[in-house]
Amino acid sequence: MDPELFLDVANYIKEVHHIAYPLFDVAHFAMSCIHVRDDMSPNFLVVSRKHPLACWISCMLSCFAGYILANALLGEMPLAPLKDPKEVGLASLVWYLIFYSPFDIVYTLCKWFPVKLILSLLKEVQRVHKVHAGVHHTAKMYPHAYLVQVIIGVVKGAGAGFSKIAERFIRGTWIPTGHEFLQPTFPTKACAAAALLFVAEANTTYITAPHSFVYLGVVIFFVYFKFSSMMFSIHD
Amino acid sequence: MDPELFLDVANYIKEVHHIAYPLFDVAHFAMSCIHVRDDMSPNFLVVSRKHPLACWISCMLSCFAGYILANALLGEMPLAPLKDPKEVGLASLVWYLIFYSPFDIVYTLCKWFPVKLILSLLKEVQRVHKVHAGVHHTAKMYPHAYLVQVIIGVVKGAGAGFSKIAERFIRGTWIPTGHEFLQPTFPTKACAAAALLFVAEANTTYITAPHSFVYLGVVIFFVYFKFSSMMFSIHD
Amino acid sequence: MDPELFLDVANYIKEVHHIAYPLFDVAHFAMSCIHVRDDMSPNFLVVSRKHPLACWISCMLSCFAGYILANALLGEMPLAPLKDPKEVGLASLVWYLIFYSPFDIVYTLCKWFPVKLILSLLKEVQRVHKVHAGVHHTAKMYPHAYLVQVIIGVVKGAGAGFSKIAERFIRGTWIPTGHEFLQPTFPTKACAAAALLFVAEANTTYITAPHSFVYLGVVIFFVYFKFSSMMFSIHD
Ligand SMILES: [Mg+2]
Ligand SMILES: [Mg+2]
Ligand SMILES: [Mg+2]
Repeated sequence: MDPELFLDVANYIKEVHHIAYPLFDVAHFAMSCIHVRDDMSPNFLVVSRKHPLACWISCMLSCFAGYILANALLGEMPLAPLKDPKEVGLASLVWYLIFYSPFDIVYTLCKWFPVKLILSLLKEVQRVHKVHAGVHHTAKMYPHAYLVQVIIGVVKGAGAGFSKIAERFIRGTWIPTGHEFLQPTFPTKACAAAALLFVAEANTTYITAPHSFVYLGVVIFFVYFKFSSMMFSIHD
Repeated sequence: MDPELFLDVANYIKEVHHIAYPLFDVAHFAMSCIHVRDDMSPNFLVVSRKHPLACWISCMLSCFAGYILANALLGEMPLAPLKDPKEVGLASLVWYLIFYSPFDIVYTLCKWFPVKLILSLLKEVQRVHKVHAGVHHTAKMYPHAYLVQVIIGVVKGAGAGFSKIAERFIRGTWIPTGHEFLQPTFPTKACAAAALLFVAEANTTYITAPHSFVYLGVVIFFVYFKFSSMMFSIHD
Repeated sequence: MDPELFLDVANYIKEVHHIAYPLFDVAHFAMSCIHVRDDMSPNFLVVSRKHPLACWISCMLSCFAGYILANALLGEMPLAPLKDPKEVGLASLVWYLIFYSPFDIVYTLCKWFPVKLILSLLKEVQRVHKVHAGVHHTAKMYPHAYLVQVIIGVVKGAGAGFSKIAERFIRGTWIPTGHEFLQPTFPTKACAAAALLFVAEANTTYITAPHSFVYLGVVIFFVYFKFSSMMFSIHD
């Protein structure tokens, strides 16, 4: 292949990814806020109208759970995700639209199956990116701490499950049971498998396929499984 | 103004502030310990006589709540306030006098309205200093992380409200409701407003008044509001 | 004494300690896992067979409690103990044998009094080492923060007591009472005394005995007291 053409294609893909990245974030934020809203659903009006601050903190915790928890576990700054005004602004805007738009139009639109399906699949793609980034970031600091790499990968990819009890607490609901350690949901198990695969791929010679093939395979698995579970109403 | 005279006045004010600083700390420690003691009041004798360690830890957590929480949120050392033996010694002495002085003389004196008023107003002055120091300290590390600056300012100024559930837990009382996120008390709201003002002042050109004027205005607001609420028995 | 002979003896002791070190770790891991297993004893079969992940996390938290808590309190990496695959592998192997060996043979063997006695005494020896290491490690960073040195010493030596509520929570049991702050167990009190002694020895001239004598005295005290309490069924 002509090297200049390859460079053009690579730059084009990078540019598309750069442009599309906020789309993945919006999908993640929307699904996270919808999840929190459905979880509070009997108290929705009380919490959203009378306790907007607790509602917002609860959703921010859910949106940035993986980042906050991973940083806390690594002894780094837990508030790191809030350092970026654009990111927090985007998450806050999504929260506001999901909770307070007139006639609940944005919430209703997102709950419409085709839109919900697209948002879910985008979120799954980003989930794989987060797991891989978590493993990779940790491996740079601690090359031989495989267990820590897996833990951070799982937490980055499925963080909201682990913070659910704290997030409910902030909303005024204290339920200290049924958490992620006792009953790992499917996202947690899938992220653990993906993290293990990424760690094994980086540290052993058993996996001979190129990295991009492995990554694409994991993305296909996550997207396919979510697609199937939504199409055939299998819930995790 | 003659520069040398100005320098003399500035040094004098600095010296007075330096001499007076422990006074502000003592007021804060006294009010914090009184707050904890009143909060445990049905169990006061049990906790203070049978569980002195839990009582002391509870009060230290309340005295240094802002510092501990801010450091934890920034990924810094949570035990930092305990690095200074003089500070911890002073706080422990105040705790001891509030809880164990003969005939409850120190507690009774502090609860006497004129003394309570002075201690409360001194605490409000220091609260503004803490908010400003929190915002300023965070801004040096993260110049554009405005939300983090506000959060740290609020936590530094109104930290005890956020740690109340943990502090009660240490004393053997578990009440996971009615916390600062769900029902922000007036100090929290006031600190948020002050932090927002300090951040806006440092990063925009809308506020043209000199910094010392803005700072003094915030101090006057806090002191005036506390004075009014105590004089006319309005509680937060 | 002939300096070369002294050097030979010192190297021999160092070598023995190096070889024996995993033995102390195994004793600590075994006693920690037994402690967790006995604590969950009504639910043992449910937790160990249906929730192996929660069971393992619970035991790892108990095994590395001191290290995790001390790091968290110092603003360092809480997951640090998991950086060492050998250490985590050894702890996991011990956990597996205590919980899942055929006919419960390893658990039964460890509960046999002579074996239990040896494991307990080895754990007490290591406890002193952990307290001293905690005080020493903190003193290098914060030479004059005596209170922090004592706190870290206590947490390093008696950490599992402080993490018990969190460890039970991970297993699905929420009991927010009867914790280490309210009712310090004997190990906590003993570690506090030892930490105070090590801090005083390093920072004052009241203790003129050589350090190794003081250290040996503390070890003898811990071992003797544990021996007595086990021989005469006095429980802490
Ligand atoms: Mg208050
Ligand atoms: Mg840190
Ligand atoms: Mg124990």
